[in-house]
Order: sequence, then C-alpha cells, then structure tokens
Amino acid sequence: MRATLMYGAGDVRVETVPDARLIEPTDALLTITHSCICGSDLWPYRKMAPSNTGRRMGHEFIGVVEAVGVNVRTIKRGDLVVAPFVWSDGTCVFCQERLQTSCLHGGAWGGPDVDGGQGEAVRAPRADGTLVALPVGRDDALMPSLLTLSDVMGTGHHAARAAKVGPGRIVAVVGDGAVGLCGVIAARRLGAEQIIMLGRHADRIALAREFGATDIVSERGDEAIERVREITGGLGAHSVLECVGYAESMRTALSIARSGGAVGRVGVPQDEAIPAARETFFKNITISGGPAPTRAYIEELLPDVMEGRILPGRVFDRIIDLDAVPDGYRAMNDREAIKVMIAL
Amino acid sequence: MRATLMYGAGDVRVETVPDARLIEPTDALLTITHSCICGSDLWPYRKMAPSNTGRRMGHEFIGVVEAVGVNVRTIKRGDLVVAPFVWSDGTCVFCQERLQTSCLHGGAWGGPDVDGGQGEAVRAPRADGTLVALPVGRDDALMPSLLTLSDVMGTGHHAARAAKVGPGRIVAVVGDGAVGLCGVIAARRLGAEQIIMLGRHADRIALAREFGATDIVSERGDEAIERVREITGGLGAHSVLECVGYAESMRTALSIARSGGAVGRVGVPQDEAIPAARETFFKNITISGGPAPTRAYIEELLPDVMEGRILPGRVFDRIIDLDAVPDGYRAMNDREAIKVMIAL
Repeated sequence: MRATLMYGAGDVRVETVPDARLIEPTDALLTITHSCICGSDLWPYRKMAPSNTGRRMGHEFIGVVEAVGVNVRTIKRGDLVVAPFVWSDGTCVFCQERLQTSCLHGGAWGGPDVDGGQGEAVRAPRADGTLVALPVGRDDALMPSLLTLSDVMGTGHHAARAAKVGPGRIVAVVGDGAVGLCGVIAARRLGAEQIIMLGRHADRIALAREFGATDIVSERGDEAIERVREITGGLGAHSVLECVGYAESMRTALSIARSGGAVGRVGVPQDEAIPAARETFFKNITISGGPAPTRAYIEELLPDVMEGRILPGRVFDRIIDLDAVPDGYRAMNDREAIKVMIAL
Repeated sequence: MRATLMYGAGDVRVETVPDARLIEPTDALLTITHSCICGSDLWPYRKMAPSNTGRRMGHEFIGVVEAVGVNVRTIKRGDLVVAPFVWSDGTCVFCQERLQTSCLHGGAWGGPDVDGGQGEAVRAPRADGTLVALPVGRDDALMPSLLTLSDVMGTGHHAARAAKVGPGRIVAVVGDGAVGLCGVIAARRLGAEQIIMLGRHADRIALAREFGATDIVSERGDEAIERVREITGGLGAHSVLECVGYAESMRTALSIARSGGAVGRVGVPQDEAIPAARETFFKNITISGGPAPTRAYIEELLPDVMEGRILPGRVFDRIIDLDAVPDGYRAMNDREAIKVMIAL
C-alpha cells in the first residue's frame, strides 16, 4: 500500500510500505477514505532531524472497516468510522475518566508497528476503545466536518473547556490556524458572550467572523495585549485559548487573561518552561489543557455536526489526493492553506 | 506607637513610628491584639536589599476597633476583627467574584501610607470590605486558630481548592511549613481519601499526621517523586498542593501529579518560569492558585473553627511579644519554630 513518510525537515514522501493487516485480536483493519494534515505535523516538518528509515505520518482520519480481530465487539466490517488522534483501550482508569489521551495501553498513530493515517490503510489497535462508527455514508456532504472530530474540532473544544468557557464569558483565541478557528466555534457553542480572535490573515479572520468571533485583534506582541485590554475594559479575557505552542504566544495568552481567569492550552509547547510564573500567580490564573481526549468529545459534538449546528469542516480550504501530500505540507507551512484534506 | 520594620536581609527592628490614625472616611483604626510572622516574610528576610527607610512588616492580625470613619457601616468601635492579608473594597467586580486579592481598589498591608500588622495598631483601609467581626472575646482560647483565618489556613484551603481536592481524591502536599500543614487540614476537611505529606522535620510530620496526613514521604528530589508514585500505584496524586515557591518544589509538585490532575500553588514563586511545560501538557495537568482570597474563605471556615472541627492554631509553636519579633524571624528562618504568634 501507499503511505506518507517524513524523512526530515521539509522532506515528506509518499511511498510503498507493507500492507496494513490485523495483528492483535483487538485490531480492526481500515481502508482510509479521508485524512488530513495537522498543524502539529508542521513541527517535525520544520525541525525533524534527518532519518534513514522515515517516520509514518497522519493521525486524523475516517475509514471503512475491512476486517476485525476476534475480540472486537462494537465495530464491524463495513462500518464507516472516525479515529481519534490517539488510540486507547476504552477500559483503563484514564479511559474511564474520559482522558483517553493518557490511556495506559494506548498510543500514537505512526508509532512502532502502527500505521499512520496519511495512507491507504491502517491497522487500528484497540478498535472497540478507539473507533466510533458514523451514521452516514462515505460520500456524505458532512464528511469534512466529521473528519474534524478526529482532532481539530475536539482540540478547539478542549481548549475552550480547559479555559472554562461558558455563558457570559469573554473569550480570546490566540492563533488563527484551524485549531484556533475551531476554538471560536467551540466558544460560541458553549455560550461565550464575546470572542476576540488574535490573527492577521484575511482569509482566516473572515472565517473566524463567520464562526462567531466578535472582535479581531491584528496587532502583534505588546500592542496586541494592549488592544485586548482596551476591548475588555482594562480587565482582560475570562478565558484564553492558546492554540499555537510557542513561549511567546503563551506569554500573550497569559498576559491577556483577566485575574481569576483561565488559559486553555492546546498548542504543543515548543519550550521547556511556561513563562510568567509570578504574574500568573499574582493574578490567580489557571493554566490547563493538553492533548484533547477527542474520543470523549466525539459523542458530545457529533449531534451538532450531524444537525448542521456547527460546520468545522469549513477549515479545510484545499482537498488533495495522496500523491499531493508533500505539496500539502508545503502549502500549510507556507500558510497558503489553512488545513488540507486528503481524499482517498 | 511601636512597629516592626525590615531594613534588609536578616535586619528586622522594632521601632517607634507615627501613631496609626484614621485618614479616609472608609478607614477603621485598630489596636492589634494578635499578630504573627508569615512564611512569605522570610523571602525578604533572606533576600531584601538594604534600605535606609525600612519596610513595615506584617499582614496577618486580629485587633480591636478603636474608631471608624464616617462612611464605615458594618464595623463598629469595640468589635474584635480579623484582617485578611490584603485589604479590599468589597464592592468591585473582583470582590463580587470573591477574588478580593485582585480588588481594583485594594492593597497590601505595610504599603505606602498603610501600617503593617506586626505593630501596636493599624489604620485599616476599606474597613467594610476588609474586616470581619469575630463572635468571641480577645482572650478566647480559639484565638490562635481564628488568627490563621487571616492568611495561613485560608491559604492552605486555597491550595486545596485550586488543586480540586474532593472526596475520593489522593492528595499530596509539597512543603511542611505552616501553609502545608493547613493544606493537610483543608484536604481532610474537603474529603480527601489519602493525604501524602512530603516533609522531613519530625515536629512538622507529627503535626501533619494529627491533622490527617495518611502517608509521609521524607525522601528528596527524584527519590521523593518515585516514592509518591509507589504509594499511588504508579499513577501520582489527583491533587497536589505546592506550598513552597521554588522552581524545584514546583517541579516536584508537577511530577507527582497524576494525568488529568491539578496542582494548586500558593508558595510565592521565586523564579520567572513554571518548569515542565511539555510534561505537564502531555499529562493534561491543571496549574492553578495564587494569593488566597482569605476574605472570601473566612465565612466558609469560621464555623469549623468556632465549633472546633479544625484546629489550625496548632501551627503556632511559639508565642512572643512585640520586642521579640526580630528573634521570631530568626527562629522561623532557622526552622526552630513552625510559626510564631505575637501576643500584644
């Protein structure tokens, strides 16, 4: 089969790899119908050291179940399923607490002996715990929005939950990528009174406004902080969604949070420390977040997608085939595209 | 009148200062009956640069109201009152949210034109918002425990709240000072199932056990982290109370928190950054806390003190008079005393 590998910074290739197959009795074998490139895939695209063997890529996908192991109970051949961006057993103490990203027996797609999602097929470990069957056919118009439940919409939702978004709250979103845009959707869905998007790209800002952003701050650094303070009567935002991952964006997020407020971080941290230990202390700011347990959120968000109340699939502004994946990485890295969908 | 001033690291003096007096119509004038030395007073005791004018000290006290300004409504002459460790107006948006430590018109004791609490008297600004009348006489046996509502018990409670302590939770307390010990009281009061105290001083450990600690970890550094993991079945504690303030103690606190857990920090951070940005991210750990809004907590904790259900006053293991305050600082800094009460 064909699949995507990364061999180093800027070096993405689609190659022939061994066919995916069932190994464990708890596995399912999927043919992938829809996949995509994640903002987090761009970190290795910028920084990965050269590798001779390459690394299998992709962790957001929808597929059709071709076969299941003898111990699989809830997923069956023919099901169209969405996969969260980590696999999990569904039964351990953390899965029971709905924090499947900390599953004691789970792991990442593209890890040792596990296929990546940017390819023709995958072996899905722990299929009962991991996969969620979708109540639609593979050609349904909702497919892009359903695909976002794998990661990006659940991640925006996690940022909003971690930042304690709720009715009457003033929300700020740092980062106008696909996750930040889904954060706007999540904030509106959770009843935020005001949603301030920090961003500077016309296409992303336009989409943010359609998703519910009430204010746009296009300044940078200290000027952005000052502008958010002005908009919020000098107090800052109750809830700030950090959707980037740099220390500098985290510093901005922490600076625009109001005393007693919360910052929900979902951008993978690129630095070893969280800045502003003292400032955040004296303001009693809560810092929360991490990898989103999208497996838990699929159930919560699916009805809203099915009934068209949210349209997170609009973050996909380019659809490509598998052979074009290397150029898809380039386009996202160059900010030519917000988020790239791969139709197989 | 006589009051305590700090002139630099290790240089504490009791001197004659101008008598406290009413200035604003919202002030109350108090004669102090009980005061104490705070763990946070030890930071300048160790690090303060020499000063010619000195700095007025003390922010935890009980006193008798001698006079009130014309606009004071709820506090009257003759009342015995406890003062939270910051003063606040009780009406601003943050006071209404019960985060009086961020009061828009509040401030610190011992700041410009405001007396400190380690002295014979104070002008208490914003008396209605700040002070809470106590339903006892000044010689009541509960006075030490009532005095802890000013800061240390409320601070331990804040750490526990920020760390989301509740029934069934496994709690760890980093720091065996008076705040950590009050954190044990708070954790037990909030229904924690298991309370692990990290500490090495025999007297403090004994008190921690009496307050409800179920396990003691006396190792240091990585060995302490390993020991907590063993005690908690490899998973870590749901709730960790950081009651020190060094980056190293924060690192320990973050390392022993379980995935999805919370660290409540009340030790004043001595460093510019919070460590372990990535480790805490991947574990979805919440970091919360800051200066405790003890004004809000007095109402919650007072009944338990009055009815003897909690005895936080036991953290005071030395009682001195005002002249002995410099030696009180030395004794606390040398860990000869857990916490020193000043009886006037």
